[in-house]
Amino acid sequence: MGIVLGPNRYGKAESRVVRIVRDSPRHEIRDLNVSSALRGDFAAAHTDGDQSQVLPTDTQKNTAFAFAKRHGVSSPEDYALALGRRLLEATPAATGAAVTVEEFAWDRIPVDGAGHDHAFVRRGGEVRTTSVDVTPQGAVVESGLHDLVVLKSTGSEFKGFLRDDYTTLPDADDRILATALRAGWRYASTDGIDWNATYDAVRSLLLATFATTYSRALQETLYAMGRAVLEAHAEVAEISFAAPNKHHFLVDLAPFGLDNPGEVFIAADRPYGLIEATVTREDD
Amino acid sequence: MGIVLGPNRYGKAESRVVRIVRDSPRHEIRDLNVSSALRGDFAAAHTDGDQSQVLPTDTQKNTAFAFAKRHGVSSPEDYALALGRRLLEATPAATGAAVTVEEFAWDRIPVDGAGHDHAFVRRGGEVRTTSVDVTPQGAVVESGLHDLVVLKSTGSEFKGFLRDDYTTLPDADDRILATALRAGWRYASTDGIDWNATYDAVRSLLLATFATTYSRALQETLYAMGRAVLEAHAEVAEISFAAPNKHHFLVDLAPFGLDNPGEVFIAADRPYGLIEATVTREDD
Amino acid sequence: MGIVLGPNRYGKAESRVVRIVRDSPRHEIRDLNVSSALRGDFAAAHTDGDQSQVLPTDTQKNTAFAFAKRHGVSSPEDYALALGRRLLEATPAATGAAVTVEEFAWDRIPVDGAGHDHAFVRRGGEVRTTSVDVTPQGAVVESGLHDLVVLKSTGSEFKGFLRDDYTTLPDADDRILATALRAGWRYASTDGIDWNATYDAVRSLLLATFATTYSRALQETLYAMGRAVLEAHAEVAEISFAAPNKHHFLVDLAPFGLDNPGEVFIAADRPYGLIEATVTREDD
Amino acid sequence: MGIVLGPNRYGKAESRVVRIVRDSPRHEIRDLNVSSALRGDFAAAHTDGDQSQVLPTDTQKNTAFAFAKRHGVSSPEDYALALGRRLLEATPAATGAAVTVEEFAWDRIPVDGAGHDHAFVRRGGEVRTTSVDVTPQGAVVESGLHDLVVLKSTGSEFKGFLRDDYTTLPDADDRILATALRAGWRYASTDGIDWNATYDAVRSLLLATFATTYSRALQETLYAMGRAVLEAHAEVAEISFAAPNKHHFLVDLAPFGLDNPGEVFIAADRPYGLIEATVTREDD
Repeated sequence: MGIVLGPNRYGKAESRVVRIVRDSPRHEIRDLNVSSALRGDFAAAHTDGDQSQVLPTDTQKNTAFAFAKRHGVSSPEDYALALGRRLLEATPAATGAAVTVEEFAWDRIPVDGAGHDHAFVRRGGEVRTTSVDVTPQGAVVESGLHDLVVLKSTGSEFKGFLRDDYTTLPDADDRILATALRAGWRYASTDGIDWNATYDAVRSLLLATFATTYSRALQETLYAMGRAVLEAHAEVAEISFAAPNKHHFLVDLAPFGLDNPGEVFIAADRPYGLIEATVTREDD
Repeated sequence: MGIVLGPNRYGKAESRVVRIVRDSPRHEIRDLNVSSALRGDFAAAHTDGDQSQVLPTDTQKNTAFAFAKRHGVSSPEDYALALGRRLLEATPAATGAAVTVEEFAWDRIPVDGAGHDHAFVRRGGEVRTTSVDVTPQGAVVESGLHDLVVLKSTGSEFKGFLRDDYTTLPDADDRILATALRAGWRYASTDGIDWNATYDAVRSLLLATFATTYSRALQETLYAMGRAVLEAHAEVAEISFAAPNKHHFLVDLAPFGLDNPGEVFIAADRPYGLIEATVTREDD
Repeated sequence: MGIVLGPNRYGKAESRVVRIVRDSPRHEIRDLNVSSALRGDFAAAHTDGDQSQVLPTDTQKNTAFAFAKRHGVSSPEDYALALGRRLLEATPAATGAAVTVEEFAWDRIPVDGAGHDHAFVRRGGEVRTTSVDVTPQGAVVESGLHDLVVLKSTGSEFKGFLRDDYTTLPDADDRILATALRAGWRYASTDGIDWNATYDAVRSLLLATFATTYSRALQETLYAMGRAVLEAHAEVAEISFAAPNKHHFLVDLAPFGLDNPGEVFIAADRPYGLIEATVTREDD
Repeated sequence: MGIVLGPNRYGKAESRVVRIVRDSPRHEIRDLNVSSALRGDFAAAHTDGDQSQVLPTDTQKNTAFAFAKRHGVSSPEDYALALGRRLLEATPAATGAAVTVEEFAWDRIPVDGAGHDHAFVRRGGEVRTTSVDVTPQGAVVESGLHDLVVLKSTGSEFKGFLRDDYTTLPDADDRILATALRAGWRYASTDGIDWNATYDAVRSLLLATFATTYSRALQETLYAMGRAVLEAHAEVAEISFAAPNKHHFLVDLAPFGLDNPGEVFIAADRPYGLIEATVTREDD
């Protein structure tokens, strides 16, 4: 059995591109973390040390910065598509280019009730993401977010589960449900999408559905969130979630003569439940 | 020269206390990271392994959780003072108790234009802090925040500095100024302070001063922020800052036929400038 | 188009299991981070909130700790296989169980030239890993490591690469090559493998090959490392790498009247090259 | 009460300086993280934006890299002293310069039983540190380490402690004792010290004392370690420790029909005990 090269790709990860739009005194800021990777026939680089078909990762970085100027950043998706197309075009041996962008949100600093023209405070909270895959046949866009930390202080139970010899967990009628949500939704196409407006709408819908769904398990909550997005957004083909169940354990205060009817919890670090689920369309 | 025990203290660090107030259907949440430390005459524990004067760190943790119920958490400061006083009282050998609290902010999830009763999203951004030191003579409170990430896209220069044989930095007439601010302000007393309102006011003032001060150095900006707080808040005796200068370097796009008049930057990780300064009152 | 549940799985992540073997005064320690996940027909939990087929993640955690005693931890692989088989057997709806284990290495503390019986110092460096996938048809084991940080101070070049309009990188005849290696090798079967001895042998071979291979690109080095492992270990079917190119840039000391023939570098954080490659067998 | 500038300092933090010594084919590597800070009369920079006395942090960084060549890095201490003296000399307004260095250790990769000439693997484990403070009057050196993770699987108890209404902890006759040690020892002078040999000797002594001391509390163990260092090293004036008590809790396996005589533990993340102590000389 001969030894051969299997799947491989290479690129530049985590270029921290900050784009200021200063066409008017009221500046705009886009704060991005950009990664790209090329795949294709790069066997000679691995087996013979021949780099003649390898566009350096340094060039990929340069392109990421140059395109923030040349193409601009109207949205992470639009920018990532342009960057991916350029990298594919520049690399004859490549059969595909993947570009991933994280965006960190900033708010204008409030001064006398209005947002300042050129001073910003980083919003914190979730990170907006997009992963774009470009091939000669077209492009696929999956947008999403991670570290959207949400919590319900009631309206969550977990009971009636399977039990075996190692089960000690009692039924819970009323518990805290909390997670740091990671979600990614794949668009059915790349045409005519308002990337920023759709992001805002999906994010709001995920939050509202989390809030208003009575939860019999984190699985049920995730499925409800996914269904809500697919029902409201025909342009979304599929949505995937990875959600750590950030456990909050009720503290036993009885030794101190105190009751604790769902008031004092310890937030645990590890271990944590981890639920992964995709919600999709039947014919997809 | 004999060998002796020098300064020492011990406690429990980073108890993750989550307090839900559910007296009405509209819940409240306080999400805290609590650390405590006792100092005093604990030499026997070190030199003879005698624990008879040592209140266990496990007990300090229990007290932190119990006091979230017994005393409640109207503010991190009020809670920390109560906890510190209890720990000092419970430990005859202690001459002082230090309690540090970090608070993570949550917002209500918006549903149909209103905040939900019991579903929350973590705000992200800066962490509110307080450090309380309790002795038999009284208590000192220093409140503050960390990881308040701010950026000005113009209105900042750095020039006319000292030069030596190792200086290559050119004068900068217009640069990005950004930092992840850590600030702590010491209150002149603990009486009659509205801790939450004061926190909000100081935070807003720090932000607005950062935004509206033309900056000839991060040092000047920090001093202006500190002065503004001391001028507006007679109850604050002193304020200290630690501010990494988060460098954003202009990217040279000339090799690609592009100009770059302050539009595309790379955000650097390390190294970073680090400015530390205290602003105080003359007679303090 | 109806909306349906797609791929999904759930489990408990990062149980920190520490197993002390104390059958004799010379203790042994195994320090593990254990994650498990079940997949199968769990649709009812998602769509109807019906948990009757769901073995709780809490039970998975309990089983992880219980099996550290009942089965023992002769190797991460052997333990993970036993745990995966148990979880699959305990869950009728499951069609597969995945168990991932990280192991942190400890050395005996040297005292008077010999290792102490029950005092240990954590070794640091790379983390040993295994990922086991158990189905009714059998089990697949992929073992590996991550964070094996290696560096060559010479014997590495990068030149003759593809150039486009965004390429500014000059050829490098002699550069530092450094990476934090992640590697995973899949075993052809699970029978008759000495997991610990094989791990040690593969790790040593990866290191020695990195050291002794002249590098015309990180890709070539990875391929050489993979080929060496497959040639020496018939029991390994395939090996995959993910290797950040941890850039070390030569510092320009000319402004200070100093030359710098490969002596002083700045180690950069971001961005970094990222090379991913699999080396496999032709008929695999 | 006028508002004035209080204590302040500024510098460049975390320059990642890598120094290769390649005078012979057998290379040496020193891998450093260097921070410097200047203090003195820099009020004008804060109050008037006048930088004329401010040596830029960029220059401090340049000097750190240049001195890795000009002065070399025979030890972190020797390098830090040279750098601190230079920065003080270059800055007329400065009254003191503080330089902190972290060093990451590398081993030669073993090939055919010998260490390779120019290929290295990062050792992991503890980080060596030094903090040097230089003034016109002289220099003070405090060297140390952090993240030295040690564990005893027996030979540790904790009992007979103070109890109050919030105490639930039972006496422990035999427990795991583990910590991630941070230690810093101040030298009595800077003359005639073999910095590298002393570091190795102190580190070995800390480890051996941890191993061989029966522990009635982490406090007692730290004090014993400190005393051992001061007794053996007349050149050390004082040693300080910060040691998180990394709790390992015995897991209750009784529900599963298993006993657990000190064999299976869960390693907890938070909260943790935190013990800080200094051991010094009576006349110091």
